[in-house]
Amino acid sequence: MVGIGPGSLIDMTPRARQAVETAEVIVGYDTYLHLIQDLLAGKATIGTGMMQEIDRCQAAVEQAMSGKQVAVISSGDPGVYGMAGLVLELVGKYPATLQPEVVVVPGISAVSAAAAVLGAPLMHDFAVISLSDLLTPWEVIEKRIAMAAAGDFVIAIYNPKSIRRTSQIEAVREITLQHRGPNTPVGIVHHATRDKEDMTLSTLDGFTNEHIDMFSLVLIGNSQTYVADGKMITPRGYRL
Amino acid sequence: MVGIGPGSLIDMTPRARQAVETAEVIVGYDTYLHLIQDLLAGKATIGTGMMQEIDRCQAAVEQAMSGKQVAVISSGDPGVYGMAGLVLELVGKYPATLQPEVVVVPGISAVSAAAAVLGAPLMHDFAVISLSDLLTPWEVIEKRIAMAAAGDFVIAIYNPKSIRRTSQIEAVREITLQHRGPNTPVGIVHHATRDKEDMTLSTLDGFTNEHIDMFSLVLIGNSQTYVADGKMITPRGYRL
Repeated sequence: MVGIGPGSLIDMTPRARQAVETAEVIVGYDTYLHLIQDLLAGKATIGTGMMQEIDRCQAAVEQAMSGKQVAVISSGDPGVYGMAGLVLELVGKYPATLQPEVVVVPGISAVSAAAAVLGAPLMHDFAVISLSDLLTPWEVIEKRIAMAAAGDFVIAIYNPKSIRRTSQIEAVREITLQHRGPNTPVGIVHHATRDKEDMTLSTLDGFTNEHIDMFSLVLIGNSQTYVADGKMITPRGYRL
Repeated sequence: MVGIGPGSLIDMTPRARQAVETAEVIVGYDTYLHLIQDLLAGKATIGTGMMQEIDRCQAAVEQAMSGKQVAVISSGDPGVYGMAGLVLELVGKYPATLQPEVVVVPGISAVSAAAAVLGAPLMHDFAVISLSDLLTPWEVIEKRIAMAAAGDFVIAIYNPKSIRRTSQIEAVREITLQHRGPNTPVGIVHHATRDKEDMTLSTLDGFTNEHIDMFSLVLIGNSQTYVADGKMITPRGYRL
């Protein structure tokens, strides 16, 4: 299970690169295979569309059980909404004596990459929440938003919006406004570290008017977060 | 602002390595300078003890304002309880025309590294909380623990315990037990990816009896987290 980081080879650790280079079979979503295509010459690849995670990971497990060294790649960190858990769950269905060894090689997570683009928004306690309701009931997500807002966590939102799913990010705004001021800084980052990288600094009151899609990562400041000279900063509490 | 990752050079991204290699002055806590000593030949270094963060970062800012290229290193990710925020705060005290350019180069965070050692505990929404009350009132920390526990977040604890500070982790246990079963898995990781790496799998009821110190990262599972074949797994919700 290999994290390739946010997208450029210069943000992929040597350990991750080595895991890909020594593997015989590379498994991953086509977009991520494309990001590391320079490492794939002469290797077998198993790539499919976004909705077939289970089949893809099952194929990876079967390849590994047949004796092949397999790298399942995730963008960012495979341990954060990536494929590490699914592969371990699938491996766990086999008797222990048949299970291939699974090693998780962490990568720079999308939230770390987005935070770096914005400045230093994650310097204090934070909560990471995905708004995707494909695998999680909305009531669970909504309660987490409420608890994170009440606890004054910096809030990082994965999967904030898709063409089909537009109301959840409005709910985040409304719930969080019950606990924080309308001018609380909100940062929106697309494609951190890639060619198309862009970032927008907005406010809790207005951020849902900005462009947000399934590639956006949204970071909502806590009650102390401020913007200065184009950087979003959450103070740690030093007396300066 | 450069994240060197959890400690080994093979977990440091090429972008971070390049930032250190091209810098003339390297600033950081002595332990972290030691971890990357192979990259420091011929460079000026500014290293001090753990308690002098402000002086160290101020010296880095002054070096940069004098025209030098400076790398301030943090272990893990400089954007997660690292030095990125402090440096930006100090830079912000100068007029814009005098401010040196600050770039944050993310690193593999301690929480990503610890999760990889344990298996896949962070596959669903999670909260990251530091128990250090040096810069944050305990009442704020305590409320965040309660909110994270009530929201069924996986909870990652930085700075769980020191020689002076031992009651906070017991409070985490008691608060979280109000919301989750006593057998909820808890993972404790020391020195992830370094020579002295070790991990312990315990339960919410019993984990405070295990060895925990200022180098430990503690991960408390959510209501769905389980342990199988020595791995801590939080299911994402796939129907398998």
